[in-house]
Amino acid sequence: MSTLTQSRAWLALKLHREQFAATRMTDLFATDPQRFKNFSLRVHDVLLDYSKNLVNAETMQLLVALARERGLGAEIQRLFNGDKINVSEDRAVLHTALRDGVPVRVDGNDVMPEVKATLARMRAFADGVRDGSLGGRGGRKITDVINVGIGGSHLGPALATAALAPYAAGGSRVHYISNVDAAAVQRTLAPLDPATTIAIVESKTFTTTETLTNAKLVRDWLGVPAGADAGNQLVAVTANTRLAAEFGVTTDRVFPCWDWVGGRYSLWSAMGLPIALGIGMDNFEKLLHGAREMDAHFRDAPFDRSMPVVLAVLGVWYNNFFGAASQAILPYDESLALLPAHLQQLDMESSGKQVTRDGETVDYDTGMIIWGATGTNAQHSFFQLLHQGTRLVPADFIAVCEPHHAMPHSHAILLSNFFAQTAALMNGAPADGFPGNRPTNSILVQKLTPHSLGMLLALYEHKVFVQNTIWGINAFDQPGVELGKRLASGILPDLEAATAAGRYDASTTGLINFYKINRHS
Amino acid sequence: MSTLTQSRAWLALKLHREQFAATRMTDLFATDPQRFKNFSLRVHDVLLDYSKNLVNAETMQLLVALARERGLGAEIQRLFNGDKINVSEDRAVLHTALRDGVPVRVDGNDVMPEVKATLARMRAFADGVRDGSLGGRGGRKITDVINVGIGGSHLGPALATAALAPYAAGGSRVHYISNVDAAAVQRTLAPLDPATTIAIVESKTFTTTETLTNAKLVRDWLGVPAGADAGNQLVAVTANTRLAAEFGVTTDRVFPCWDWVGGRYSLWSAMGLPIALGIGMDNFEKLLHGAREMDAHFRDAPFDRSMPVVLAVLGVWYNNFFGAASQAILPYDESLALLPAHLQQLDMESSGKQVTRDGETVDYDTGMIIWGATGTNAQHSFFQLLHQGTRLVPADFIAVCEPHHAMPHSHAILLSNFFAQTAALMNGAPADGFPGNRPTNSILVQKLTPHSLGMLLALYEHKVFVQNTIWGINAFDQPGVELGKRLASGILPDLEAATAAGRYDASTTGLINFYKINRHS
Repeated sequence: MSTLTQSRAWLALKLHREQFAATRMTDLFATDPQRFKNFSLRVHDVLLDYSKNLVNAETMQLLVALARERGLGAEIQRLFNGDKINVSEDRAVLHTALRDGVPVRVDGNDVMPEVKATLARMRAFADGVRDGSLGGRGGRKITDVINVGIGGSHLGPALATAALAPYAAGGSRVHYISNVDAAAVQRTLAPLDPATTIAIVESKTFTTTETLTNAKLVRDWLGVPAGADAGNQLVAVTANTRLAAEFGVTTDRVFPCWDWVGGRYSLWSAMGLPIALGIGMDNFEKLLHGAREMDAHFRDAPFDRSMPVVLAVLGVWYNNFFGAASQAILPYDESLALLPAHLQQLDMESSGKQVTRDGETVDYDTGMIIWGATGTNAQHSFFQLLHQGTRLVPADFIAVCEPHHAMPHSHAILLSNFFAQTAALMNGAPADGFPGNRPTNSILVQKLTPHSLGMLLALYEHKVFVQNTIWGINAFDQPGVELGKRLASGILPDLEAATAAGRYDASTTGLINFYKINRHS
Repeated sequence: MSTLTQSRAWLALKLHREQFAATRMTDLFATDPQRFKNFSLRVHDVLLDYSKNLVNAETMQLLVALARERGLGAEIQRLFNGDKINVSEDRAVLHTALRDGVPVRVDGNDVMPEVKATLARMRAFADGVRDGSLGGRGGRKITDVINVGIGGSHLGPALATAALAPYAAGGSRVHYISNVDAAAVQRTLAPLDPATTIAIVESKTFTTTETLTNAKLVRDWLGVPAGADAGNQLVAVTANTRLAAEFGVTTDRVFPCWDWVGGRYSLWSAMGLPIALGIGMDNFEKLLHGAREMDAHFRDAPFDRSMPVVLAVLGVWYNNFFGAASQAILPYDESLALLPAHLQQLDMESSGKQVTRDGETVDYDTGMIIWGATGTNAQHSFFQLLHQGTRLVPADFIAVCEPHHAMPHSHAILLSNFFAQTAALMNGAPADGFPGNRPTNSILVQKLTPHSLGMLLALYEHKVFVQNTIWGINAFDQPGVELGKRLASGILPDLEAATAAGRYDASTTGLINFYKINRHS
């Protein structure tokens, strides 16, 4: 048995879980008139109501005790201090520094001057593009920006661009190219004019196959000869200035990234440049400030009043003590349609591990499957299973009180569904085949602003951090992407060779040869 | 114990599963040089390679025996015969009839004449709009079509429209409005011209709250006064002609839908009209023909050579004997980005049930969580968990051999990743922390045409049908959507009232009042 599963707190939770077998959430409400007050938290304009969960005060105490026993307090300090908590890669983890401004030392050097200098460069560039003083080809005003990047260089920025569209007046239209799918690239480019479009190439190493393959297609489309200086037409965000220059990016159009920012946290860095071009630098900084507000809450709040800690331990409760394998993310807002995909990346890439920081194989489950879609659309799709299926699926419902439009009736209908579903999942209607007793969190945001979006995203970042601390795994590496990457490079020449492939297992060989025969009809 | 879990086939599989505990897939390949040949199937231009699964010949025999023991043969006949297999709603289930043309009787009446008449009307309308002879307001050529519908009236058509975009030359641009989110409606309408745009309102009952709320916004934007005859500007697909007429839809612009087509199967019916407007009626009929080809295969192939049966029993194997809670759908093609969402609806709405057709509560798991995203994007996101997480996630990899673009190098890179990932998930690299032995199906399609898309979608429809037959549940109802709908209608007046709400549980009351206080900043 591992340190975790034989810990006092874990064993206490196991026992407590057995006592919970017959507990109905509706009884918990009946016996505690203050349950909403006691099981909800507010930070600035974000409300978390976690009262519709299979927990009582004792559960929360035991869960918080587990977090404490696992050293969460010290771990939070190490995070904010810039300690090298990404142990496998021997790196500090400082996405919080990107939104703070307080000096942080890594290897003895304060990172903050470079962070601030980069923000200033981002501001100058975004302002120049937006006011037209920095033109594209032949000095023409830039109307469209294409971001070429994949993974963290795509999902976070694309989510923020979509979510904050109401703030984009006067900004460039921002488009995202990620997958190495030339048809998708063509569809994105088709309506654009290369004379008024610029591209940002985002790759930490500047060697990401998908990104460089697509970047070359875009460079050709922009009319920049390979190796020529692209002027304002190409921008890079990378740690590899040399390769960016060889690609044709002017030196002063290269923005840095640092090894202490993981891909899935990179929207807060210069990788967020497309966001800034869309909504302006003032709004981008408000996004940072929102995240900073959640950072401060996470650093300072007692665990039982900490929103990220509460979300995290509830996840551990269902994952490790109820056997729930997945967690649904359900934003009732189309502008947050990418939130499930962003959190899926954040969470599953951080938590999809089975070896602890100490190199031991776990004897408990770690990361859950994170999935979801917007409500009410999802109500007409997979909610059937949430209500009447055989599986426990804890779900986060997320909505906004004040919309950006002036059609209150539409919004009231949307929110009536939001409230109705969490009530229905809890209450059920056993006589009609709805067992109920299905747990949900409700997160209400006053209005979807850069500030509140920043809070929301940082909330989930810290939730993941807390869970990883409890499970004893490193939240910040992703060794699982390497094996497939290596194999793909080995297979590619076989796909482009004239002869049939033969050196793989029978399945892979069979598939490759089917492809080679059928790639021309 | 239920009939299922005490059946001979089930108990044999349980025993067989224990023998499988230490089996490595790589050993299965080592001992059977013909494994690819023995564990793959081809139907027309679709290849299914299921050799990278934790199965041997005996497993497949036992699984097929289970399907047989559960009466699959008779059930397939009942499906194609038009028997009322949707027992809870006392309805026949005839999406297959929509793509066949052979007479089928329901309550003694052949449904085929009406099916054919509807196809002819769809053709006349789609042709007229596409060639300009049927104009919009003031007879102007219609350039854009807005489809207003949710659930099955949205996902299937939207998927087909996106997947078949290469066939859309000369067609109307098609846009989808589904969620009751007025900001999303405004974003869709903003770039369009009401003089050259028409809207299709899709709702079987013509009372779906989301659809009617949005349809009113669109009608206003089109400049059609409430109740006035909208001419060509509004089209309806509904079983409720009276309500459509009251809404302003001219009688000959109302297309029918039938109670023997469930929402999640409706893209094959007149609900597919937006598809036909985009790609033309000839291509829409090729989509139907592709599905018909899979229907014929499903009806006629022996179970062990039936692609839907094989996919289905593999799902049962992992779900019920390995405890897998979810199934990933991974199309390596951006034009199939909506496929995971469509299959999620199809599968989870059909299988998310815990009561059998005979009214018994199951003692085994039914529907899995269906989720996924496109590769290679997903490789930079959740693949970390697939490779190194603690959970077994069987995954379907789907790719196309011949792309619609002329950039073979991009496509070879994409496919090299496809092949590499299934190999890496199987082989692993235990010394480097990759356990391997993780099962995948590979589905390769020669080219993504209307015909092959039809085959692919019908494949999964029948897969779900087989699983439901094994589990003994009704695939075709969705009682789980009703409770929340009813509650939402009850809550709506409280949201629009001036006073605070108070008649709910403390959580729902607290949330509603937070919303009411915060809906204006």
